[in-house]
Amino acid sequence: MPYRSPVTDYTFLLNHVVGYDRVCATETFAEAGADMVEAILTEAGRMCDEVMAPLQRGGDLNPARLENGVLRTSPGFADGWKAISEGGWIGMSGNPEHGGMGLPMTVTTAVNEMMSGACLSLQLAPLMSQGQIEALEHHASDAIKELYLPKLISGEWSGTMNLTEPQAGSDVGALSSKAEPNGDGTYAVTGQKIFISWGDNDFCDNVCHLVLARLPDGVPGTKGISLFLVPRNLPDENGNAGVANSLKVVSLEHKMGLHGSPTCVMQYDGATGWLVGEEHGGMAAMFTMMNNARLGVGGQGVGVAEAAWQHALAYAMERKQGKSASGTIVDHADVRRMLMSMKADVFAARAILMACAVAIDMGNATGSAEWKARAAFLTPIAKAFGTDTGISVSETGVQVHGGMGFIEETGAAQFYRDVRVTAIYEGTNGIQAMDLVARKMMDGGEAASRLLDEIEAHAEGARAQLPELAGPVWEASETLREATEWLVGQGDMTERFAGAVPYLRAFARVLGAHYHLAAALADKGGAREKLARFYINALLPEHDSLLVQARNGAGDLYALDLDELAA
Amino acid sequence: MPYRSPVTDYTFLLNHVVGYDRVCATETFAEAGADMVEAILTEAGRMCDEVMAPLQRGGDLNPARLENGVLRTSPGFADGWKAISEGGWIGMSGNPEHGGMGLPMTVTTAVNEMMSGACLSLQLAPLMSQGQIEALEHHASDAIKELYLPKLISGEWSGTMNLTEPQAGSDVGALSSKAEPNGDGTYAVTGQKIFISWGDNDFCDNVCHLVLARLPDGVPGTKGISLFLVPRNLPDENGNAGVANSLKVVSLEHKMGLHGSPTCVMQYDGATGWLVGEEHGGMAAMFTMMNNARLGVGGQGVGVAEAAWQHALAYAMERKQGKSASGTIVDHADVRRMLMSMKADVFAARAILMACAVAIDMGNATGSAEWKARAAFLTPIAKAFGTDTGISVSETGVQVHGGMGFIEETGAAQFYRDVRVTAIYEGTNGIQAMDLVARKMMDGGEAASRLLDEIEAHAEGARAQLPELAGPVWEASETLREATEWLVGQGDMTERFAGAVPYLRAFARVLGAHYHLAAALADKGGAREKLARFYINALLPEHDSLLVQARNGAGDLYALDLDELAA
Repeated sequence: MPYRSPVTDYTFLLNHVVGYDRVCATETFAEAGADMVEAILTEAGRMCDEVMAPLQRGGDLNPARLENGVLRTSPGFADGWKAISEGGWIGMSGNPEHGGMGLPMTVTTAVNEMMSGACLSLQLAPLMSQGQIEALEHHASDAIKELYLPKLISGEWSGTMNLTEPQAGSDVGALSSKAEPNGDGTYAVTGQKIFISWGDNDFCDNVCHLVLARLPDGVPGTKGISLFLVPRNLPDENGNAGVANSLKVVSLEHKMGLHGSPTCVMQYDGATGWLVGEEHGGMAAMFTMMNNARLGVGGQGVGVAEAAWQHALAYAMERKQGKSASGTIVDHADVRRMLMSMKADVFAARAILMACAVAIDMGNATGSAEWKARAAFLTPIAKAFGTDTGISVSETGVQVHGGMGFIEETGAAQFYRDVRVTAIYEGTNGIQAMDLVARKMMDGGEAASRLLDEIEAHAEGARAQLPELAGPVWEASETLREATEWLVGQGDMTERFAGAVPYLRAFARVLGAHYHLAAALADKGGAREKLARFYINALLPEHDSLLVQARNGAGDLYALDLDELAA
Repeated sequence: MPYRSPVTDYTFLLNHVVGYDRVCATETFAEAGADMVEAILTEAGRMCDEVMAPLQRGGDLNPARLENGVLRTSPGFADGWKAISEGGWIGMSGNPEHGGMGLPMTVTTAVNEMMSGACLSLQLAPLMSQGQIEALEHHASDAIKELYLPKLISGEWSGTMNLTEPQAGSDVGALSSKAEPNGDGTYAVTGQKIFISWGDNDFCDNVCHLVLARLPDGVPGTKGISLFLVPRNLPDENGNAGVANSLKVVSLEHKMGLHGSPTCVMQYDGATGWLVGEEHGGMAAMFTMMNNARLGVGGQGVGVAEAAWQHALAYAMERKQGKSASGTIVDHADVRRMLMSMKADVFAARAILMACAVAIDMGNATGSAEWKARAAFLTPIAKAFGTDTGISVSETGVQVHGGMGFIEETGAAQFYRDVRVTAIYEGTNGIQAMDLVARKMMDGGEAASRLLDEIEAHAEGARAQLPELAGPVWEASETLREATEWLVGQGDMTERFAGAVPYLRAFARVLGAHYHLAAALADKGGAREKLARFYINALLPEHDSLLVQARNGAGDLYALDLDELAA
């Protein structure tokens, strides 16, 4: 069965679960009403199904490669990029002033997810451009905006993010790339960057790099870092890609998956760059870009989970084996358990993703601090749970295929290999969890508490109609509230960090139950209520044991000294 | 850090946790005392570390290939096979009458695990031979034993298992390969077999296939299947490999991992074979082979988990990032959480594996029905939990490596890709769980109940010394007992199958706690007690939510009809 973008699931979620009506009730997004969004998603879905999905396997078999310093992309990827560009899917949320569609993040996130399910390695390219567009819109000078944004939004040029260096991964502040003023308003950027996704391609006139580097007077650590825009080709007097800048792709990484996406080692040798944002204000600019990129990566996880689920279901419905009603393995109880778990988790992860996107839009449209706090709180959950779901669902997809799951021709293995990196890049899922229990609880747990209030009020309201679903959701939320209060009470951050990952997952489990309950209410007696029932009965209980672990503290973790650990 | 076989962990387990003293107290295994076993493990460990581990990466980069019908193995694998053969590691448990060492299964299992950690793709070759040796010892005629066993045990020849056909995977009874009597006591075997691990090689004089096929009067289903020995080369009058038989390797599969192990499509065109066991008694003979192969595959999971753990720990201890006591990521709470989980789970999975092997040995040495039932009960748990641990620990290993985990050069990704198949072959882990709740509970839950009695008695005994560890183990066992009684009470097998996988995992979690508690008692105040404390506080609680799912029944799974599932 070929990939089919989950447009119906999206329209249901927007209309009945995550309250998209609030977004299009704002002045900012008044034009993006439900009907228009449905039309946009349908159009995007067609492009994903017909243009991008057929590129998936070829990208795996024919990785991007470097030939005498020239980057050659996988077969058909140039056409795929053209279709994405021409559809306007790069600049969906971009400012209309520069050619963008000005759509809500909710719509962009949905389309990004659908593109990820169709072909993750290609989708990463527009995702990088989107991050750059957002960063430039917020932090660049007008001159830069006018020159670069139209070209990035149209897809004529592409964008990348350059943070990591060999000694500076999660610890960005350890970076050693330097930028020196040239005296003409530009800077000479020098250093090596690694893990640069889509660091080059052969289908854009120019590739624009946003590079973190330190000015001569930059202090050590994150506070001395600035952000620079460093294009592969220097714009000529007409604003077109001109002479080559002093930078190059040194090599490509050999990766477990995502072969169609070139992961580059970049070398900057006094390359000409322009400051974006304030001197030494690089981290602030980078965070703008990263927060949305984190949501985008969460969407990648959900997209791959959707594709792996469709793939596994199709296999289960046609694989004849054993005696059963249909004669296929879909009737076997354990296969059904796997399929139900996949479907229920895809829904939960997607709902969390959408709820986060709605909060971002509401924050942007209304300026409400409460919505902004909600968005900030949900972002690490959407990223980590979305990508963990991508991994677990694609792993289950391999298992549903039995022996064929280990054979590359079926495609089940590719989902599993490709999606693995999503739990690592844009901040590992461990970093997301630390962000959740530290930065996102600097408000004393207020954002968390408001969310729990909402979950409980909703469950209370559902009690009359669906008591056996509403009850467990309410109780789970209470257990989570107790754990949250315990966490907030830990002044020693190590105590919080010790349980951060299980806490984040428990929160996602409860949120998933909350949205499943909303779906059940909207489809009482229907398929969505049945799916919610399975989730709440079988998957939600995991939150209990996760919270036990979350509250276990750091003592047990550090009980072994390094010699004992290694013994 | 290069791979180091976990000899010390094994000697501790044998002497303090799984009661190996009972094995060498039997007449059968009187010679395999603790000192001798330690010497054997040390010797095997040296071979694993020095000969096999260096072949790991080359096997991945240079897969086995088929050149004009000739199979070429990965570089160095021929030397590896030679070292394994000459060390006597193929025929460890083989009958001394035919050149075997006659060692207990416990020792074989330990050595197999160590070899798996060193180089899984090569280790699969001797594992296949061991299964064949065991099947021939139990079911073949004396003439076949005398001709084949010495050559299989010495490694001059190798063995394979041929069960699967395109339409007959988990449902072996659907196979269509045929065997017709030639009139001279031999049979003409015709059919196609797939997923044949090590279906050929370029380092043995002969490759002997055990092939399931149906005689002309064989009824449909498993009851009409017979087992045949079909060598690649027909033995000449001196018993050496002679003229080629009518069979060939048609092609090799392109797999996600385990590239060094050739996975063959085999074609038999009236190939000459000899009946092994009774006519139509093929499944009985196959089960002999499969039961031990299942334990062996469980050991593969544990071995890879061990290697992935060592790899990740070494990386964490040298990767400088952020500010911490050591300056490396090993001091970060979440990294420590991952490392502790890996270490604690490797111990638990290995203990279950060893306990199962001890039960097999006791059953063989004493003929006790109770020990045999224990072995039969533990086998699916050892297989499924061992391989699930291989997958989860190698997945965590990738995560500990951060971005480097996705890059193939580090080796973390290879563990993750290689080990994935172990949850699938030799009966998927879903099949293992169904075996546990159906066949292994045909005794009305007696084997399970005896094991739980033992766990609770042990916990009772530990209460005085380690109350805060013994208490939770006792309680977890009681919850498990209730779930077991509920399962046994379900006459409709679908109700049992619906919760089989979470039930199996919950049982493994409780068993793991039981063995951790034993380790804690033997090392009071020491590192093993600290590790046990982490396992019991942080990992054991998972069993609770698993048992909720296990008892949820089939209703929720089948609530959606196929149209709703696919919607």
